[in-house]
Amino acid sequence: MARAYNFSAGPATLPEPVLRQAQAEMLDWNGVGASIVELSHRGAEFMDVAAQAEADLRRLLSVPDDYAVLFLAGGATTQQALLALNFAAPGQVADYVVTGHWGRTAIRQVEPYVRVHVAADGGPGGFRDIPPRDTWSLSADAAYVHITANETIHGVEFRDTPEVGAAPLFADFSSSIASEPVDVSRYGLIYAGAQKNLGPVGISVVIVRRELLQREGQPRADIFTYASHAARDSMLNTPPTWNWYLLGLTVKWMLDEGGVEEFARRNAAKAGLVYGAIDASGGFYRNEVAPAVRSRMNIPFFLSDETLTARFVAESKAAGLLALKGHKAVGGLRASLYNAMPVAGAQALVDFMHDFQQRHG
Amino acid sequence: MARAYNFSAGPATLPEPVLRQAQAEMLDWNGVGASIVELSHRGAEFMDVAAQAEADLRRLLSVPDDYAVLFLAGGATTQQALLALNFAAPGQVADYVVTGHWGRTAIRQVEPYVRVHVAADGGPGGFRDIPPRDTWSLSADAAYVHITANETIHGVEFRDTPEVGAAPLFADFSSSIASEPVDVSRYGLIYAGAQKNLGPVGISVVIVRRELLQREGQPRADIFTYASHAARDSMLNTPPTWNWYLLGLTVKWMLDEGGVEEFARRNAAKAGLVYGAIDASGGFYRNEVAPAVRSRMNIPFFLSDETLTARFVAESKAAGLLALKGHKAVGGLRASLYNAMPVAGAQALVDFMHDFQQRHG
Repeated sequence: MARAYNFSAGPATLPEPVLRQAQAEMLDWNGVGASIVELSHRGAEFMDVAAQAEADLRRLLSVPDDYAVLFLAGGATTQQALLALNFAAPGQVADYVVTGHWGRTAIRQVEPYVRVHVAADGGPGGFRDIPPRDTWSLSADAAYVHITANETIHGVEFRDTPEVGAAPLFADFSSSIASEPVDVSRYGLIYAGAQKNLGPVGISVVIVRRELLQREGQPRADIFTYASHAARDSMLNTPPTWNWYLLGLTVKWMLDEGGVEEFARRNAAKAGLVYGAIDASGGFYRNEVAPAVRSRMNIPFFLSDETLTARFVAESKAAGLLALKGHKAVGGLRASLYNAMPVAGAQALVDFMHDFQQRHG
Repeated sequence: MARAYNFSAGPATLPEPVLRQAQAEMLDWNGVGASIVELSHRGAEFMDVAAQAEADLRRLLSVPDDYAVLFLAGGATTQQALLALNFAAPGQVADYVVTGHWGRTAIRQVEPYVRVHVAADGGPGGFRDIPPRDTWSLSADAAYVHITANETIHGVEFRDTPEVGAAPLFADFSSSIASEPVDVSRYGLIYAGAQKNLGPVGISVVIVRRELLQREGQPRADIFTYASHAARDSMLNTPPTWNWYLLGLTVKWMLDEGGVEEFARRNAAKAGLVYGAIDASGGFYRNEVAPAVRSRMNIPFFLSDETLTARFVAESKAAGLLALKGHKAVGGLRASLYNAMPVAGAQALVDFMHDFQQRHG
């Protein structure tokens, strides 16, 4: 079939020009007689690709020079474990602000290593809001404070960077990195699986203030040491080269399209369309998140008549709108609107929602 | 240019039919309207791809039912660290047989976790031979015995599975998995980065006897726990889906070509060609590894006149023979002859070697 609009929460839709370039180069990258996926990571060709991707990502996100940018195998969950190993002494307290499913996952990874202090928890409110900053109970001696910038399943998003005092702020930006301008200098560390806004699955980005790399952390293998990866330009071992290459193409595309300011505009427009349709549906559709923290990236929503949910999923799929089924943890429906989703895709979804309501409302 | 013969040690050459299929499906996999790299790992489409890859790999390698097969992000180095975390008590002794560079790397990853006992070390002999089994000093109470089945840099390979008594035998098969029949039941665990014989970079395979997953190991994050990955069919978190898909295509290709028996035949033929050319060169080329343990996968070799090495690399590249420069740790030249390298590629190399010798000998 023709390319559909794919609302998957991740792995997620990629820009078609990026896929077309990867397709064209699949058997022969840049005339070298081999695919990029077949080239040594130590060769001049891939080293150039890797360095360009880093330079472009630094430009896209306005990363200050005193921050290292790492490209690492695996997803955000692995980074969650490495935060404690690299930056907290054994048993030291670490503060976690839990605003959804992924905040809880982050805690589970570090429980063997640190004393977790939940400084705030949106769980009692069903994760429909972010606890106000003045209610947080931050520790005096925390190794770091961890937040989840955007919660993919519950659909809540920090719209401002919280002030947390002396401890460095660590943030899981997996599902909202590069979706709008962010002041990186407000964070000690930002990490993100790439498979939502930065391109392909199978690679993560860690942006970390270099001085933090001097922390001793706790006993760990060299492969788990961010400072070792930083010292070797993320080539401590064989990195996921093809994924890195595709990330580079995606970042280049974002720069060419106008950078994060332009994507902030598009993302606001897309989210405005879908929330607008939900709020104007007279209760046929509903989203339960407090408007001030509604995610622009992931919009979970529900039909007032839940027996229609499966029909919505089937009919939208037939109409070329993929992966609108909600996460099993909350049910219902979900539309993910990452950078590679065009405004026309959000409009197509809204048109379908109107049509579905007319037929079933 | 046309497709060259690529002798890279990894990431390495892939079968052209696999690349062509990935190319054809890049924008639309199986008519679903999206690329496989854009599909959710939790969706029926990718779950089928993943399950088929596992079934095919089990068939290719004749994996017994009481072994789990895991598909994990990252490379072999991460697995090296996880061996100790999952299977050894804190500070327990683990035996390592060191036959080259990668055996040393494996030790470095576990030193924070176990008491490493080097049961045998080929280092004093320059890694030109594998210490005979009857000289190994195995511990009575080792958590496991670790070997490197094939050393990519030094070019030595176990041609038989050593008998090690009661402790389970763990083996790094990164550069020789699926290159010939192996009796998996002789091993407690086999691990391999995929980027040599199994397909793309960015994913590793771990084949482990299920009963070993019950070992307590030592404190670690859930994401570092093999039993958790096994319980969730390697979908504990978002796996590197595209890499898994390409691995599946590669395994399918190997089955279609005749399986490991056929590749054992081809690999013996390829290695025979190149070693034959070296040995018949009257000293113009030399390989210093004891013939009985010469690697079929990676052939490091040297010119008697080392000032000609750079010229050999440049001229061979111009002739469409890529990545023949040796690893910096040993210098010289190296030809890697993984499953996807056709016999015609080895013949082309040998023809070039003859020609080069005639011009410079």
